[in-house]
Amino acid sequence: MADRGFVIERAQILSVGTELLIGQTLDTNAHFLARQLTELGIASYRHSLVGDNEGRLEEELKRALDDNDLVITTGGLGPTADDVTSSVAAKIFDVKLAPTSDNLSYPLVPEGAFIFPNDNGSAPGSLLIRPLAGQKKAILLLPGPPDEMEPMFLNYVKASLDEYTAHSFIHRYVRLFGIGESKAEAMARHLLDAQGEVTIAPYASPREVVFRVSQRRSKEADGTLQVVDALTSLFGDYVFEVGERPLEQVVLDLLIEKKKTVAFAESLTAGMAASTMASLPGASGALAGGVVTYNDRMKERLLGVPHALLAEHGAVSEQVARRMAEGCLVSCQSDFAISLTGIAGPAGGSERAPVGTVWIALAEQGTETTSFLYHMRGLRERVRLRAVYHALDVLRKRLITR
Amino acid sequence: MADRGFVIERAQILSVGTELLIGQTLDTNAHFLARQLTELGIASYRHSLVGDNEGRLEEELKRALDDNDLVITTGGLGPTADDVTSSVAAKIFDVKLAPTSDNLSYPLVPEGAFIFPNDNGSAPGSLLIRPLAGQKKAILLLPGPPDEMEPMFLNYVKASLDEYTAHSFIHRYVRLFGIGESKAEAMARHLLDAQGEVTIAPYASPREVVFRVSQRRSKEADGTLQVVDALTSLFGDYVFEVGERPLEQVVLDLLIEKKKTVAFAESLTAGMAASTMASLPGASGALAGGVVTYNDRMKERLLGVPHALLAEHGAVSEQVARRMAEGCLVSCQSDFAISLTGIAGPAGGSERAPVGTVWIALAEQGTETTSFLYHMRGLRERVRLRAVYHALDVLRKRLITR
Repeated sequence: MADRGFVIERAQILSVGTELLIGQTLDTNAHFLARQLTELGIASYRHSLVGDNEGRLEEELKRALDDNDLVITTGGLGPTADDVTSSVAAKIFDVKLAPTSDNLSYPLVPEGAFIFPNDNGSAPGSLLIRPLAGQKKAILLLPGPPDEMEPMFLNYVKASLDEYTAHSFIHRYVRLFGIGESKAEAMARHLLDAQGEVTIAPYASPREVVFRVSQRRSKEADGTLQVVDALTSLFGDYVFEVGERPLEQVVLDLLIEKKKTVAFAESLTAGMAASTMASLPGASGALAGGVVTYNDRMKERLLGVPHALLAEHGAVSEQVARRMAEGCLVSCQSDFAISLTGIAGPAGGSERAPVGTVWIALAEQGTETTSFLYHMRGLRERVRLRAVYHALDVLRKRLITR
Repeated sequence: MADRGFVIERAQILSVGTELLIGQTLDTNAHFLARQLTELGIASYRHSLVGDNEGRLEEELKRALDDNDLVITTGGLGPTADDVTSSVAAKIFDVKLAPTSDNLSYPLVPEGAFIFPNDNGSAPGSLLIRPLAGQKKAILLLPGPPDEMEPMFLNYVKASLDEYTAHSFIHRYVRLFGIGESKAEAMARHLLDAQGEVTIAPYASPREVVFRVSQRRSKEADGTLQVVDALTSLFGDYVFEVGERPLEQVVLDLLIEKKKTVAFAESLTAGMAASTMASLPGASGALAGGVVTYNDRMKERLLGVPHALLAEHGAVSEQVARRMAEGCLVSCQSDFAISLTGIAGPAGGSERAPVGTVWIALAEQGTETTSFLYHMRGLRERVRLRAVYHALDVLRKRLITR
């Protein structure tokens, strides 16, 4: 399909949707696409967002096409009257809208566009490349719902765009857990200061700290490997992955490789740890299941935690965490059992266990149980999420010794 | 401080930061500010985002000031060389930058601006109102970190902006579950076609379909109530909320009001249902806990599902779903127990239970168990998420009869 001679150097992301404009929905698409453009080596200097309004969309789209080789829109492809992106794009490029199937009314795409299937919804994506005022320009129309747009982009669109990029990049990722972004950057200061052809970009989320190591693909030697080696030896145990896998995938792969199973006994996370594992295809190869014990009675009944222990130490204590893990190992008959108990907040904190206190214990068949104490900052959902990833990291560190 | 005669009717949000532009950080500020503008009744037709680049920021800011009474920037107020927002704003308005404290080098704000204190960081906010090409224009400079910007806006900025607004809006929300967006819009066609002073905007996500009903606040009667009534009687049982609450909050509030508890027996969702309830502060008032049974042995051991039943009907069957719910009711001693079993995909489908098949059963103390069959489209995570919300909706419908 490649249109020879057309090169995409610069792109603008344009989100469309009144629900985004008035702040009802958070726009995550622009963020996702920005990362993808960075990976493709396509420069982007501006993003913008307009509502479902034909006049304003047309104005914004024209301006974006003036300044860029490619404009990527998300949203406004649906069947209803306020979905106007396709018709505005067709108008600007002076093409007709055509049906993509026997249903003549919907979905319609610009004639002559390359179509990307939507495996998770009804509106397909489309890429139209046409001259506009004497210069070839491209518009990529993507659906708005992230669970339709993201897989469409990764599975179909990305490879197409790559055919039009001027240069491609080698990107390698070193992923860490258990260290803060500032500390990681300080430790890597000498490497960051010495950047040249090979660039290093740190990112952080509650799930990880990532160093992206990049170099323009050329006939020169691949200098990224040496920087990756320097980072992995610098950060040692903190490194859970050199590559693309999130921590849960690394843990699942280790479990499957070592033919081991895991179960979770969850209090504050209430199923989030097991569910995070189960988000991965093939999780049933290693995830046995678990128990959600959101109150003391459940901890007694389902995990056999003695009433006296709960009364004496409180539910958020090392003693209870250890008994939860050991009880889970017995009731689920898995090779490993991990317990999580803590105070997610905003209420429920005490002097003994303030908000953000989390105990994690790891029980293993035939081995002594170990336990870990954390003090986490932030809101309820952040505390719960961090607890899940700390639990996964505890298991990872055990597994690499097995 | 109010500048008499200056009215803010239209504003643009302009986010500044290379880390946002390349997708390293997700911009949540625009979303937060968009909601605030909506509440203040200030129209906003476009948001945009540029990197820490003086030339591009100046161009974008000039254009935004041309089209709007107010431009709100976030980011670029720090002390480092790439923080250029204040100096670009001062240049456009032809004012000097002045120190706000004895430290003469930082932070600097445009001379003549109204200053908002930053209780959580070092860069204050500022609001400058000055004529530009003969018309009064305003620029509001806010810091980039959300935990500095949001409290500053709520505690200091909002009241100031309110002095300059011409009108505000009434917004009401009617939230539905169990019906698709296209079908909902078709059913409401007569109301959508009859929009006048009162406007109706539909939105959809995997969690809900929402109709937003809006009217400019005035001395006229509140016409939104009548439209909300029409929507609620049109959609009946599908309506889980007239207001702001998500489905899980509605279910939690119903449980607490009726002094009932719930537990979950989860297979394909593996804890996501319990965890979704536990994301809400106060969930411990109604969530007992649950059991994650990710394989057949766990269903036998923890929920007492007979081996023969699993062998005969398979794990994804009405019979097994019912026994899972009933077993969960016994082991967790809750008032309600809900089971979820299904095929999330991509693998594991069969003729009897193709990918997307989900059985949900609801057991209640002293009542006959009921069960529900769903066929869901989409990727693994969408199937799991939809299953969770269907389970919550099954419980909601039972609770409103109790």
